[in-house]
Amino acid sequence: MNYLVIMAGGQGTRFWPVSTAECPKQFLDVLGTGRTLLQLTADRMRGIVPPENVWVVTSARYRDLVAAQLPEVPAGQVLLEPCGRNTAPCICYASWKIKKRDPRANIIVSPSDHIVGDEPAFRKCVADALEFAAETDGIVTLGIKPSRPETGYGYIRADLRYSSGRKAGIYRVDAFKEKPEPAVAERYMAEGGYFWNAGIFIWSVSTIINAFRVYAPAISRQFESLLPYYDTDEEQARIDEIYPQCENISIDYAVMEKADEVFVLPAEFGWSDMGTWSSLRERLPQDARGNAVVCAEADFYDTSNCIVHATGLKKIVVQGLDGYIVAEKDGTLMICKLSEEQRIKLFH
Amino acid sequence: MNYLVIMAGGQGTRFWPVSTAECPKQFLDVLGTGRTLLQLTADRMRGIVPPENVWVVTSARYRDLVAAQLPEVPAGQVLLEPCGRNTAPCICYASWKIKKRDPRANIIVSPSDHIVGDEPAFRKCVADALEFAAETDGIVTLGIKPSRPETGYGYIRADLRYSSGRKAGIYRVDAFKEKPEPAVAERYMAEGGYFWNAGIFIWSVSTIINAFRVYAPAISRQFESLLPYYDTDEEQARIDEIYPQCENISIDYAVMEKADEVFVLPAEFGWSDMGTWSSLRERLPQDARGNAVVCAEADFYDTSNCIVHATGLKKIVVQGLDGYIVAEKDGTLMICKLSEEQRIKLFH
Repeated sequence: MNYLVIMAGGQGTRFWPVSTAECPKQFLDVLGTGRTLLQLTADRMRGIVPPENVWVVTSARYRDLVAAQLPEVPAGQVLLEPCGRNTAPCICYASWKIKKRDPRANIIVSPSDHIVGDEPAFRKCVADALEFAAETDGIVTLGIKPSRPETGYGYIRADLRYSSGRKAGIYRVDAFKEKPEPAVAERYMAEGGYFWNAGIFIWSVSTIINAFRVYAPAISRQFESLLPYYDTDEEQARIDEIYPQCENISIDYAVMEKADEVFVLPAEFGWSDMGTWSSLRERLPQDARGNAVVCAEADFYDTSNCIVHATGLKKIVVQGLDGYIVAEKDGTLMICKLSEEQRIKLFH
Repeated sequence: MNYLVIMAGGQGTRFWPVSTAECPKQFLDVLGTGRTLLQLTADRMRGIVPPENVWVVTSARYRDLVAAQLPEVPAGQVLLEPCGRNTAPCICYASWKIKKRDPRANIIVSPSDHIVGDEPAFRKCVADALEFAAETDGIVTLGIKPSRPETGYGYIRADLRYSSGRKAGIYRVDAFKEKPEPAVAERYMAEGGYFWNAGIFIWSVSTIINAFRVYAPAISRQFESLLPYYDTDEEQARIDEIYPQCENISIDYAVMEKADEVFVLPAEFGWSDMGTWSSLRERLPQDARGNAVVCAEADFYDTSNCIVHATGLKKIVVQGLDGYIVAEKDGTLMICKLSEEQRIKLFH
């Protein structure tokens, strides 16, 4: 059986004021489609993972948001972190829980705040990766073919000389690369064989548990030790006790970079991590001058390349701006140059 | 006895979206002081005109706004225009009404949407003008000493050679001048003897009624003909009938430019007609970079010379703007360069 683990604990501070700690962007309809990013993440897996096999790991404070937005997910499959400890503890917790339920599970782990333009292409990739993961002890990541020398993502270098014997188009990973300097990103583009690390992983539960046992044994032991308490009244109290003691470490550092059987499936499905207002603007329908609008009526005069995102305003008139964010939520308005958006976290 | 006639029928479209046809700027607390411009207009006459002698002429649609904001003004002194006919019919209507009540009345006529920085100086001017008007059959205007070659106001040229024999510092008017071209405004400044026409008039009721009879007899006859109906149940119906037939003409054209005994009292009391967002910004307290804020909490980054005016927002963050208006009311937000504010009327 296939399982989906959605990681939904992020704070989304770069999308302030629309995204706030009380309601981060994964719980918002940032595209104005009527579905939140979390809902879109679950939606796009339809046909691959049965709704009853969807799990969500999130912060305890977002329990009600998840319950409201994904009512089809049983309460017992919404795992609540008492504090953030990056992705390794989060994935380990979910993996042990799923292993207890179904030792033959195959799992997709996905962030909750990314978007995908070509969902059929995405499902084909995931299905191929699941098939491969089920037949091997491979750890598979989806690698996004880079369209520009982006410095905001980590990269995966694939060994394109050897495709997997089992599945065409799946390659061994040579190395994981940190977010590069601009010149380095340019070189990655020129050389080829580099892909953006989308943070989407596919593996069998036995593969990832074994990998945790070998490469992150302390974390693995903590969640294994709770096996008798899972699905009992004591589970949350035990989790609340051990979670703060877990190492604060990403799955990339804890497992991916150390493991041997790591593969990448290069993919093109219109992916964006929605990490910035700029990336959101690029994803939205734009007028002839590059202006994009979500959730409000907007009139533009002498205005280009702006993104307007307002949920509490009815009408917006913008005159004489080029390349700005105009964002409003719950009575807070921010006007900021897109080129300065890395400063947004200092504004609140 | 002294009487005040406040003209409060304007639409204030240049202050959109804060000022709207439903609630124009005279009914708004545009300075954030807790009092509306209409209230400030009445307030500053305290000690000169008893509250029971205040009259307001406004559009019928603003009756409730006036009643709410000036509860001390008796309902019978709020005169309702069924349609706008500029200032001559408005002043003529009020003058006949006051003449019926008190044939020895002295009257100040004032717009409702101007502001005055130095109220004691203003009251001194008005008191001097009232004294002069009571003793003579003079028509007195207040002339504001120009601080810049403003092209947005009309000018009054005074004959400075001859001060009034009765009152020092009151001069005969040589001519009224339309809003000038920039070069002409510069010349007015260089020559001296030119003052901004603030639209504030002081006269006795007999003087202004006589002037209407001579220079605008058709208008005068219409309001004189209603004398039997004033303060009866029929008044409003009769006014609604004759008002649309009145000539649409300003008091300047109808009377001031034609009359002989017209005087100007040059004055300096920090006057502004609040006609533009720029003039409002200049009147407000500003931070070190020239930013002014009304009604909301605002943080500025790399931002200069902006005015933020928002009543429906709690917090505003502005990054990277120089010389902009950020104005919000009732869910409508406008961002516009101050230098382009003459286009605001096209935005709604």
